[in-house]
Formats: sequence, C-alpha cells, structure tokens
Amino acid sequence: SKNYKIAVLPGDGIGPEVTNESVKILKVIASVFNYNFQFDYGVMGAEAIFQTGNPLPEETLELCKNSDAVLFGAIGDPAFDNNPDAKVRPEQGLLKLRKELGLFANIRPIKTYDSLIKKSPLKKEIIEGTDIQIYRELISGIYFGEKFTDENGEYAYDVCKYSREDIVRIAHLAFQDAQKRKKKVTLVDKANVLDTSRLWRKICQEIAQEYPDVTLDFMFVDNAAMQMILNPKHFDVILTENMFGDIISDEASVIGGSIGLLPSASIGEDNALFEPIHGSYPQAKGKGIANPVASILSAAMLLDYLGLGPAAEKLRESVEHAIESRYVTVDLNADQNYSTAEVGNFISDYI
Amino acid sequence: SKNYKIAVLPGDGIGPEVTNESVKILKVIASVFNYNFQFDYGVMGAEAIFQTGNPLPEETLELCKNSDAVLFGAIGDPAFDNNPDAKVRPEQGLLKLRKELGLFANIRPIKTYDSLIKKSPLKKEIIEGTDIQIYRELISGIYFGEKFTDENGEYAYDVCKYSREDIVRIAHLAFQDAQKRKKKVTLVDKANVLDTSRLWRKICQEIAQEYPDVTLDFMFVDNAAMQMILNPKHFDVILTENMFGDIISDEASVIGGSIGLLPSASIGEDNALFEPIHGSYPQAKGKGIANPVASILSAAMLLDYLGLGPAAEKLRESVEHAIESRYVTVDLNADQNYSTAEVGNFISDYI
Ligand SMILES: CC(C)[C@H](C(=O)O)[C@@H](O)C(=O)O
Ligand SMILES: CC(C)[C@H](C(=O)O)[C@@H](O)C(=O)O
Repeated sequence: SKNYKIAVLPGDGIGPEVTNESVKILKVIASVFNYNFQFDYGVMGAEAIFQTGNPLPEETLELCKNSDAVLFGAIGDPAFDNNPDAKVRPEQGLLKLRKELGLFANIRPIKTYDSLIKKSPLKKEIIEGTDIQIYRELISGIYFGEKFTDENGEYAYDVCKYSREDIVRIAHLAFQDAQKRKKKVTLVDKANVLDTSRLWRKICQEIAQEYPDVTLDFMFVDNAAMQMILNPKHFDVILTENMFGDIISDEASVIGGSIGLLPSASIGEDNALFEPIHGSYPQAKGKGIANPVASILSAAMLLDYLGLGPAAEKLRESVEHAIESRYVTVDLNADQNYSTAEVGNFISDYI
Repeated sequence: SKNYKIAVLPGDGIGPEVTNESVKILKVIASVFNYNFQFDYGVMGAEAIFQTGNPLPEETLELCKNSDAVLFGAIGDPAFDNNPDAKVRPEQGLLKLRKELGLFANIRPIKTYDSLIKKSPLKKEIIEGTDIQIYRELISGIYFGEKFTDENGEYAYDVCKYSREDIVRIAHLAFQDAQKRKKKVTLVDKANVLDTSRLWRKICQEIAQEYPDVTLDFMFVDNAAMQMILNPKHFDVILTENMFGDIISDEASVIGGSIGLLPSASIGEDNALFEPIHGSYPQAKGKGIANPVASILSAAMLLDYLGLGPAAEKLRESVEHAIESRYVTVDLNADQNYSTAEVGNFISDYI
C-alpha cells in the first residue's frame, strides 16, 4: 500500500479541534482505501511561542520539509493582536512556513450548498450556482516586502514588491485551471494606482497569449469587492496578489453561508499545505462548537494533491451528505446542531 | 446674501451628467435660501489629458485652491485602464488634487432607504437600520508612497508609508464624529502582518484616551470584509487607511442597493471636495441613465461643510422624497424608471 508522510500542525484556538476531526477521517480513508498515512505532529503559532519562544520552531519546519503534505489548523491569539509592541507574533510562524516551503499559490474554492442557501446573508437568486476558484499569490507582495517602524513610533512602512517570476508561476496555474472550468480568468488589481498592479496586468496579458481558449478580464479591487456581492456568478477563476486575495476571499466566504465551510490549498514546487480559510476563533476554543468542515474539505484537497482522487471524491461526498442531512454545527443551524466531534464522526461513519 | 465660490470639475464618463444635476439643484437652493454661489468650471481626468496632456492642469488646481469647496464628478477611462504602459493616467489628476488640497479624510456615509431595501443583494433583516460612517485616510499610504517599475518590466514595487501625523489628524475626526453617534470606532487594519497597521493601532489606542466616552475596537481587514456583509449593524464609525478604505467602502455600497446613491466628502484643513463614490462608468456615458443621487447627496455634504445646514437638510429631504416616491433611475427600478435629468428635476422641483 502507498505510504505518505503528513505533517500535522494543529496551531491555535479552534485549530486543534478541527484538525483532530480531519486526522480521524483521514485514518478511516487510509483503512478503506488501503493507504498508509504517517501523521507527525508539530507545534506552531501562539502555542509554539508559549512553549519555545519561536512561532515556527526549527523542528516543525524540518518536519514539514520532510513531509509529503502539511495539514494545518489555524493561527492567532488575542494576546498578540491587542499588543502592537509584541516583537514575536504567531502569524510570523505561518508566514515563514509559507515562504520556506515556497507555497506560492493559495487556492480557495467558493461554492454554495443547496441546503445552506438560506443561511447566506445574500439572496438566493444572487448566489445560487456560484462556483469560483480564487488563486491568491501567497509568498510575495506587501506581506513579505521590507517593513520598518522607527524607534520613536513616528512612522512606519511596508513595501509591496512583485517580480515577473512571482506572477508568472501562479498565473500559469490559474489559466490551466480555467481551461478545465468556464475558461475565464479575472485579474483583480488596482492598476489605476499601483505600479505592482500594472506589472501584473502586463505579464498576465502576455501569458494569456499562451491560452487562447481562456478569456482574461481585469477588475479593480474596489469594484471586485462590490461585484463579489452583487454578481458572484460573474467570476470563474480569480487571480490576484497576496493582500487583495486575503480580503476578497474572506469576503467571498459569506456566499456559502459560513466561513466554517471553506478549505484552501497552498501549493509550491515541492510541497503543499492545507488549511481552512477561517481563523483561530479564540472565543470558541475548547467549546466543541467549531465547524470542522473547512478543515475536512482541506483534507480532501490534500488527498487530491497526493493523487488520491477517488478518496478525495468519497470524502467530499460524505461532507455533502452531512450538510444535506443538516448534520451540522451551530454556525449553520442554531436550532438543532451537533458538536465538532459529532459532525466528524457522522462524516467518518459514512465513509 | 452669503457668497461662495464653488469649483466644479465634471471629469470623465458619467461625471458631467450627474454633476450637471447637482449644479442645477444648488442653483435652486441658492435662490430659495438666498445664497450666492459662483460656479467655476475646470477640466480634469481623461478629458484634461485629451485637451492638454495633463490630467490636472495648473489652471484647474488654482481654481480649486481659490474655491470655498470643490464639486467633483468622476474619473477614469478604459483607454488607460487597458494600457499598463500609459505614462499619464486620469487618476493621477484626482490623486494629485487630493494631495495638493490636503484632503486627508474621506468620509463615506452608508445607510439604507426603506423603499430600496428590496433592491439590495442582502437580506432585509441583515441590512435594515444600517448606519455607518467610514473615515478613509486619503493622502498617504500605498497610494502616495514611492513607486517603481524597472525598465525591463522585471519587477515593481509600491511603498505604503504612514507617519504619526497622518494618523492623528483623521483619528480625531473619527472619534469626534463617533461622539455624536453611537460612540464606537472600529479601526480596520492588518496589524497581524503590517508595520503600518501596528502604528495605526498604537496611535489610535493613545488617542482613544482623549475620548473616554467612545469605545475603540480593532478588526482585521479580511474579517471586516466579511462582517460588512454578515453583520453591518456591528459598525458605527469605521476608521481605516487609504487602500483598505477604498475596498471596504465600495464593498459597503452594496448594502444600500446601489452605488449610485452614495456620496462622499474629502476634507482638509482649508478646503474640501465632494464626489460620488461611484466611478466614471464609461459604458453609461451620454445615455442619460446615470443615477444623479450620489452626486446630489455629495452636494448636500458640501452645503453642510459650508455651514448651510438647513439647506443641506432640505436637499436630503428632497432626495428621500424622490426615492420614497420611486422616482428613480434604472439601477433602482428596472420596470419604471426616469432619466438622470428627470430625477434631478423632480428633486429640484420639490425644493
Ligand atoms: C493569519 C494571517 C496572517 C493570514 C493571512 O493574512 O494570510 C490569514 O488571514 C489567511 O488568510 O490565511
Ligand atoms: C479612481 C481611484 C483612483 C479612486 C481611489 O482609488 O481612490 C476611486 O476608486 C475612489 O475611491 O475615489
């Protein structure tokens, strides 16, 4: 049977609870499909700072580098958010990990589930049938440019920088995916103001020549933030830089009715990391109410990445079964709901 | 009777059509309230580039500097958007004007109209009663930091820079406004990643000490983009930097049912500019279908700024009357609608 090393980083807040369900389910998948998964755990984020002073201990990084794929929970802790002077921050761990593993493309699928359409703050006729794939550049831009704060706290800056190579590699992935979909790529940028955005536009126009069956259109990020709500069906594949991708994809999460449903894959040349797009929700920590679906669907993307398509399909089908059966957590059903573990068990039993 | 010099810059696309209605209405206001408005016209944007090669001719800038207030239409033209190599761009005119006039605070009110609630893509129970005031910093940040593209088009960068003074002056306006409202300021930032955001957090925490009756809370921009749709009533006053403000306020425009309803005021020490938040919508240019309400409500903010409160009130009341009478343009009523000029006339007749 095939052998895979999966690094598991539960992280902060509700990260451990939701990741726990995914691991449980991956174990069931392994036995049903006769794969061999080796799960190796590492610490990261606030948890790692408390234990070691370092948000990404060397050991954890090595573990990830030697793995076939990384399953990640969530990061962030209010102890740091409300302290602008903290020198070490949990998020640095995740950013460093993305950079060190070269995870240049963050892929976020946005879709609706029939039985959850009424949970969305948006009207049914607006969102029904939405199917968007967001490609967010993940290891460059203002996240990774030079940063500076003067010692008197009088000024600060952050540099947004992009090179041709940064843009080319993710653009190809987006165009290739569009070829398998509705053949449309929308580049979201602010080319009327930013030099980096004009570079994106120029290079994407060049790359579009290699994909004559795909249409490339451009949209300013302010307009995109509006169109995402007015007319989400306009979009097929969205391609965008790091910060705009962060904002637009969290915004898009409202379409499906809960951010607790949305997985993501971060892909590089030699490695990949899978994480829910939701955060660490410290308020919900330890209460057993967190929705594990985003993490479980991230595990399905992990199976796809490992080439285990049929297992990924089975897993997605089981999640859909749970959702259509209204076997869901409180974010999706205030009246009758199930705990994180109950939802995980329901899904693994179905497999 | 009081004397005021108003610089009028109709700009591009639908700018001239909507501005035309506002000027018409301000003339009626002047005669009813016995004010004396002198309207001086200037060219700006794509129009100005075509005529003079310069998106903000010196003459236009002087006109604005010598005015009591500026009424502006819209800017932008697809001839430039789709050409990443264009050296001169319409938007540079607006950005330069904001900078030269020192318009550091862009204020965008977001509210709903009872009769338009069904036009919103959002559900009634989500948006009903929303009343948000957005304070967007307007002359600093990544819009005005150093920009660079190397000559081979291999890389580019944009610098986001903030100084204490940039933050302090707009923060005071936001806190003062909150005192007259629901006493809550939400700072939208990305303090888990950006040095500039941490500077904002730190300085706003200091300033909050001076306003003990106002609560300051913090929200990451990705989460804010989500909460704006999930729970817009969470917000009272939003305070944010330039780029985040651009994105969040366009997004928020969906709440009211049409971006064609939303005015803005850009305020500095010695001058102020009033403009709809919508763009130049070149597709609609010259068709007489553009919604003039955003421009007309911008004129009402102009009246407020000049200290002509009763006139501003009267104007807003007239706009509400038109909206509640369903005397609106096609964006708000596909079945029975009126032209830009008809709506303008209806409002001015009511005054
Ligand atoms: C935690 C934070 C640094 C991160 C980001 O901004 O990339 C998160 O919001 C995400 O989208 O994965
Ligand atoms: C036209 C453009 C430069 C401008 C901006 O980004 O500030 C516009 O979107 C706005 O919000 O006024």
